[in-house]
Amino acid sequence: MQFHLNGFHPGDPRFNDPQDAVVAPPIKRPLPDQVDVLIVGCGPAGLNLAAQLSRFGLDIAIIDQKDDRLLVGQADGIACRTVEMFQAYGFANQIIQEAYQVNEAAFWKPDADNPDQIARSSKVQDVADDLSEMPHLIINQARVHDMFLDVMRQSPSKVEPHYQRRLLDLEIDHNGGEYPVTATVERLVNFSQYSQVVETVKAKYVVGCDGARSSVRTAIGKELVGDALNQAWGVMDVLLNTDFPDIRLKSLIHSNNEGNMLIIPREGGYMVRLYIELDKLNENQRVARDQMTADVLIAAANRVMKPYTLDVKEVAWWSVYEIGQRITTAFDDSDEGHMPRVFLAGDACHTHSPKAGQGLNTSVMDTWNLGWKLAHVLTGLANENILKTYSDERREYGQALIDFDREFSRMFSAKPKSAENPDGVDPAEFQRYFQLFGEYTAGVSIQYRPSIMVSEGAHQSLATGLTVGKRFHSAPVVRQGDAKPMQLGHCHLADGAYRVYAFAGNAEPMSDQCGVRALCEFLANDVNSPLKKYTPAGADADSVIDVRAVFQQHHQAVETDTLHPVLSPRKGKYGLRDFEKVFCVDSRPESSGGGKNIYDMRGIDKKQGCVVIVRPDQYVAEVLPLDDYKGFCDFFSNVLLEA
Amino acid sequence: MQFHLNGFHPGDPRFNDPQDAVVAPPIKRPLPDQVDVLIVGCGPAGLNLAAQLSRFGLDIAIIDQKDDRLLVGQADGIACRTVEMFQAYGFANQIIQEAYQVNEAAFWKPDADNPDQIARSSKVQDVADDLSEMPHLIINQARVHDMFLDVMRQSPSKVEPHYQRRLLDLEIDHNGGEYPVTATVERLVNFSQYSQVVETVKAKYVVGCDGARSSVRTAIGKELVGDALNQAWGVMDVLLNTDFPDIRLKSLIHSNNEGNMLIIPREGGYMVRLYIELDKLNENQRVARDQMTADVLIAAANRVMKPYTLDVKEVAWWSVYEIGQRITTAFDDSDEGHMPRVFLAGDACHTHSPKAGQGLNTSVMDTWNLGWKLAHVLTGLANENILKTYSDERREYGQALIDFDREFSRMFSAKPKSAENPDGVDPAEFQRYFQLFGEYTAGVSIQYRPSIMVSEGAHQSLATGLTVGKRFHSAPVVRQGDAKPMQLGHCHLADGAYRVYAFAGNAEPMSDQCGVRALCEFLANDVNSPLKKYTPAGADADSVIDVRAVFQQHHQAVETDTLHPVLSPRKGKYGLRDFEKVFCVDSRPESSGGGKNIYDMRGIDKKQGCVVIVRPDQYVAEVLPLDDYKGFCDFFSNVLLEA
Ligand SMILES: Cc1cc2nc3c(=O)[nH]c(=O)nc-3n(C[C@H](O)[C@H](O)[C@H](O)COP(=O)(O)OP(=O)(O)OC[C@H]3O[C@@H](n4cnc5c(N)ncnc54)[C@H](O)[C@@H]3O)c2cc1C
Ligand SMILES: Cc1cc2nc3c(=O)[nH]c(=O)nc-3n(C[C@H](O)[C@H](O)[C@H](O)COP(=O)(O)OP(=O)(O)OC[C@H]3O[C@@H](n4cnc5c(N)ncnc54)[C@H](O)[C@@H]3O)c2cc1C
Repeated sequence: MQFHLNGFHPGDPRFNDPQDAVVAPPIKRPLPDQVDVLIVGCGPAGLNLAAQLSRFGLDIAIIDQKDDRLLVGQADGIACRTVEMFQAYGFANQIIQEAYQVNEAAFWKPDADNPDQIARSSKVQDVADDLSEMPHLIINQARVHDMFLDVMRQSPSKVEPHYQRRLLDLEIDHNGGEYPVTATVERLVNFSQYSQVVETVKAKYVVGCDGARSSVRTAIGKELVGDALNQAWGVMDVLLNTDFPDIRLKSLIHSNNEGNMLIIPREGGYMVRLYIELDKLNENQRVARDQMTADVLIAAANRVMKPYTLDVKEVAWWSVYEIGQRITTAFDDSDEGHMPRVFLAGDACHTHSPKAGQGLNTSVMDTWNLGWKLAHVLTGLANENILKTYSDERREYGQALIDFDREFSRMFSAKPKSAENPDGVDPAEFQRYFQLFGEYTAGVSIQYRPSIMVSEGAHQSLATGLTVGKRFHSAPVVRQGDAKPMQLGHCHLADGAYRVYAFAGNAEPMSDQCGVRALCEFLANDVNSPLKKYTPAGADADSVIDVRAVFQQHHQAVETDTLHPVLSPRKGKYGLRDFEKVFCVDSRPESSGGGKNIYDMRGIDKKQGCVVIVRPDQYVAEVLPLDDYKGFCDFFSNVLLEA
Repeated sequence: MQFHLNGFHPGDPRFNDPQDAVVAPPIKRPLPDQVDVLIVGCGPAGLNLAAQLSRFGLDIAIIDQKDDRLLVGQADGIACRTVEMFQAYGFANQIIQEAYQVNEAAFWKPDADNPDQIARSSKVQDVADDLSEMPHLIINQARVHDMFLDVMRQSPSKVEPHYQRRLLDLEIDHNGGEYPVTATVERLVNFSQYSQVVETVKAKYVVGCDGARSSVRTAIGKELVGDALNQAWGVMDVLLNTDFPDIRLKSLIHSNNEGNMLIIPREGGYMVRLYIELDKLNENQRVARDQMTADVLIAAANRVMKPYTLDVKEVAWWSVYEIGQRITTAFDDSDEGHMPRVFLAGDACHTHSPKAGQGLNTSVMDTWNLGWKLAHVLTGLANENILKTYSDERREYGQALIDFDREFSRMFSAKPKSAENPDGVDPAEFQRYFQLFGEYTAGVSIQYRPSIMVSEGAHQSLATGLTVGKRFHSAPVVRQGDAKPMQLGHCHLADGAYRVYAFAGNAEPMSDQCGVRALCEFLANDVNSPLKKYTPAGADADSVIDVRAVFQQHHQAVETDTLHPVLSPRKGKYGLRDFEKVFCVDSRPESSGGGKNIYDMRGIDKKQGCVVIVRPDQYVAEVLPLDDYKGFCDFFSNVLLEA
């Protein structure tokens, strides 16, 4: 898709007249007196949480002090892992179609022969093969917000944000009954004018997604600690012409004396984002922050890029983005004496240097971790103790990301190890870090530690490529019922269900020797079957634990009428059978788009098969032998309540 | 996507509450006094035409006697070729995500051992490899209408249909100045109640997309002629349970004595469509059309499917669809003395037996052929003589389709040729027909005859797989500017531009020997350059003739700064350069999703290269040697007017 040719306009680019892409802000309504969850902040963290919770029909409210949804600016990098999450909501395709897709990165360095000018040192593939089935995208953060807003509107809860509401304070009474948190919220006339109206909302839980200056954080007495030294970047979205040949590639440019910059091509085919590292600018070119203008940034960019020039035609947005690497000691208000009632997510509890580009991605991944847990507790599926895992899992990852980024930046700036420079960095070590960096920034390296919902991985050898604690790494399969080639990971929907994949061993499918069949029998008939124990009366059989099977045979070799009823459950008011639970290895030749065997790709034991339990947020929770029914039951007894 | 589990509901299935998916009909406004084009009928033919014309900002009106948009029923098969057209509008991905994808078909015949029961004879791949880059889809026709309505709304013309308007008559005065056609339209209170209000609209052109009982056809004195014998099919969309194992595959079932049926799985994972051929039912089971009920059809289906049973839970829609194979003598009102002013499209000028499932697909392809031609004439790009090609091209195809379907049906019912049955059909011949049938129903077999806009194909040998007169057969490439792997055919947008692909020969890209470079020089500088001649002043350089290049090298071997300016034209109000015009062979290994060379796939001469001119409707118009500038100029002099 090409757009923004005649100037940047916010909203859905499919509208020819930008006026028509304007979505009116929702009508101002009073805040409800009480809610299950109050979300403070309509950034990506808050909107993702609202989108997730609204799918469960919960009573939620989401507020923001701003006048309306975001229209332009802020982050724009969407990691592969984040697109995998979009897939679970159903809007990945739409974003992919609209976004710029990062396929290659170009590196530019001072020209050896003429160090005042830059020269390309290399072009490299941006996303390694089979890192993710999803691409790395670049798109206006505002468009991501729009997608979440659509999900919220279309959901059972039909949620619209309450804008022009500023959280003033929170009071938490841990013995205060069902709604222990009281929030006071000031109603604004608009962003710059205050009214005197104060509303109070009582909530079971409050989540502070209110950014780096979080009031929720203050209210629960947490502080961001860490690197006090902020890195400042000049950021601008521009329409321009240039003779720089890699203008439609992500380009990392180091000049000799004029500083560094990063060029990020943007959606629509014409716009680009420029990031200029301000403290790396030539000393006599630095300006005080309050003197900064778009023109100063453009001039700096032109100096960095010599001999190339940028002819900027329109500045759609610019900002100085300055943020340090800090993190709070915990992401919730829990204490020895009580379970958490207030949570922090996104920039409210960790801020990153802009270099890693992780602000948006880490923020949405926070609430993606928290959302289903809150929903499980609020709908009675789980005990509140699962909520503790949120802070444990996400804080550790936030810290690791910061540590990693610091180390990587150091290496990046250091000179290569050599005879003259024995303290430098070993290039092989740097190369290894660079690969790791790719996985980190793609968001696929996260591995949650063992807990009540992540096993120790005692049986990891049965599926070496589906690491316990890491996100389920999708691979191609063919769906048995309708012969559709697809990604197995696309079974994961943002619906709060655990997915259980029974990968068959080498027995004849559904024969007496077939371990998948035996497992189904157990699940259908045994008194201890988690399917029976944890599925609420009247709910669909797959609504809490969604059991699926994968066979090694050609899909035509598995007959629908031999399938165990657990694998084609009757659902809904009519008891219709669901035939989308069974998959086979993609047996098509490579020339027809096949040739990828999920057992080989993910190291699944072909003889024994295995069971892989995946959490609602797509993280692998457990790998078990097909016949380890006790392991199966034990896992769920930790995380679900009997219905 | 799964939906309709708890009953069928019309509209966008992303809405949890079906009420929210309801789109209010547009506010009733008076018809305009005069328009460029009046379209009669909001079926797929009319809506596609409105969508196409509205993209040009033309003054159009589209009317329908119905109260509102279609919500359920009618056709549901979307051929690959039709999805290719959706791609040009930008909504292919959305339809693909929502639709059922036909990958395999199952054939069922009387069981040899027990002929009263059916048994599966085979499963076959539905769409041959590389038939199209697009899948064969099944989705409610109403959802296709919704997509066109979105395009109309988002376009420069911002068109909404005028419902509750019935065309009464047309008067055409061929000497009547700019608006020679006068339409009288009755305003209805609702579909079943008439008002006495009659409006008149003057139009430059009127297009009758008003279905099999077309009033426009009557007004211009045309008649459907052909097979008087109608085939009647019972059609129903149902939610059901069954023990029939192929319920999620397209299944063609022939019973011994109880008739035939076709099962078509539908979008959402639960619904299926049943087609029951009524005159093939056992004689004592036939009922008069006015006695037909859903229950009668269900009972018939159950008899055909023995030993399997259908347990129908909800009938979302049913109908008896009865239509003959007929066609009008011409698709317009042109005469020796005058050019056409009124056109017919879709069911208004040709009706098909339901077996081929071509009603919707052929209808949208009619107006896809007509739309850009009308737009070219109305915006002054072309002379009105191009309009004559519409009836010539589409009528011939309509007739061919009918002939083909008749022959195929005959073969299908005939016995195989054998010693006892010397008049039977040779199985090899049948096999060949069956393959042809696949191409016909996919919509990719159409080959328009030579005309002012389709050449004789004298240089076809330079690109044997891009047949002159057939649709441009897409293949994978990598875009040079941003290293994006993509389909070359996806450059075709529904914007009315001709696409010219300069496939390079074996010279070094952009060297002095490079034929693409020489062509660009000619196009940039020669006084006869079609680019200069036909592009209106102030319009973007690629708005009428969009020149693109394909190279055989790895995409990293072609440098942006060596590209000829014709291949990165300056566009829009800022003169921004467009870097999406140059492509390279996809050099990635097969294991990384590459391994397909467009030169090999489409038989392009690697030594000499060639030029391929593609019409705005994606049909190949001409193949030329790279240096045949005269041929290039001659082609466009026939179809465009000097600006
Ligand atoms: C100006 C700017 C430029 C940025 N540029 C980049 C960039 O170039 N690259 C990059 O990767 N990242 C960038 N970021 C960071 C990225 O946008 C954030 O990391 C990401 O948005 C964090 O998401 P969040 O939901 O945690 O918080 P935010 O997106 O910050 O959202 C917090 C929301 O809470 C609201 N809020 C705050 N306090 C209250 C209160 N008391 N009451 C009610 N509402 C309140 C705010 O109005 C805001 O809408 C930028 C951020 C900003 C602000
Ligand atoms: C009941 C039914 C069932 C069908 N079932 C199938 C099927 O199962 N499979 C299949 O492949 N195809 C089926 N079809 C055929 C398929 O829907 C058509 O081939 C396709 O819709 C043709 O598109 P069209 O735009 O040419 O005409 P239509 O879709 O018929 O649209 C014509 C429109 O013109 C309007 N109109 C007619 N006269 C006037 C007038 N005087 N003034 C104003 N408006 C007028 C009508 O209200 C209608 O909306 C079915 C059609 C019908 C009607």
